Amino acid sequence: MSATAENRYRAAALFRAELRRFLRQSEDCARRFGLTPRQHLLLLQIAGSETGTTTVSELVRRLALTQSAVTELVQRAEEAGLVARKPSALDGRVSDLRLTEEGDRRLAGVHDALGPERERLRALLQDEPK
Amino acid sequence: MSATAENRYRAAALFRAELRRFLRQSEDCARRFGLTPRQHLLLLQIAGSETGTTTVSELVRRLALTQSAVTELVQRAEEAGLVARKPSALDGRVSDLRLTEEGDRRLAGVHDALGPERERLRALLQDEPK
Repeated sequence: MSATAENRYRAAALFRAELRRFLRQSEDCARRFGLTPRQHLLLLQIAGSETGTTTVSELVRRLALTQSAVTELVQRAEEAGLVARKPSALDGRVSDLRLTEEGDRRLAGVHDALGPERERLRALLQDEPK
Repeated sequence: MSATAENRYRAAALFRAELRRFLRQSEDCARRFGLTPRQHLLLLQIAGSETGTTTVSELVRRLALTQSAVTELVQRAEEAGLVARKPSALDGRVSDLRLTEEGDRRLAGVHDALGPERERLRALLQDEPK
């Protein structure tokens, strides 16, 4: 491989290595607060939506998972007391999902604990072209 | 949940949604070029290292995988004709890994195909605080 080809991949390789480190730490952090990595992302996407509530269809898009995977994820989170649903005010056939107090408490725990790692990743991404 | 708490998670939620989209597309793209997602990252980390060669120990760090997972990944990539090894010039007990021509060709294919997505992610990350 030529020196040019080496340089060509260097920034992307560094970015991916940092990203895997961040994601691994995010997963470990979620587990410390009694959440699976997917539950953490589920809670984050619900809480981070514009109104603090969202629907399964919207989660399919944001989590890049299938409808059936999201449906099961939501059901387990509901059974675990992390998420609650009620019929949407806009469309009674659809359920709005929101966090319970316990879901909110655990998400806040993970989010705060990950703060320094998020900062580190942001700084790296701003320094470095990909 | 208060309006303050909603806003607090908004940027992180958008970042994670974009990230999952990017990673999903990266995986799909790798498969189109006959690579597993992990093989793609393996080839990228080898080609993106400073000299275009690297060692299993270095890959353990960069891929955030266990020693045995990396060893197996390298072995399969070697069997698939994507990676070659030779004793390190610095330490004969260690193998230097580099891409074969076929490995280089497939990595270049994935890397070029992913270019627009990488650009999109970079633009989003620069616009948006996490």
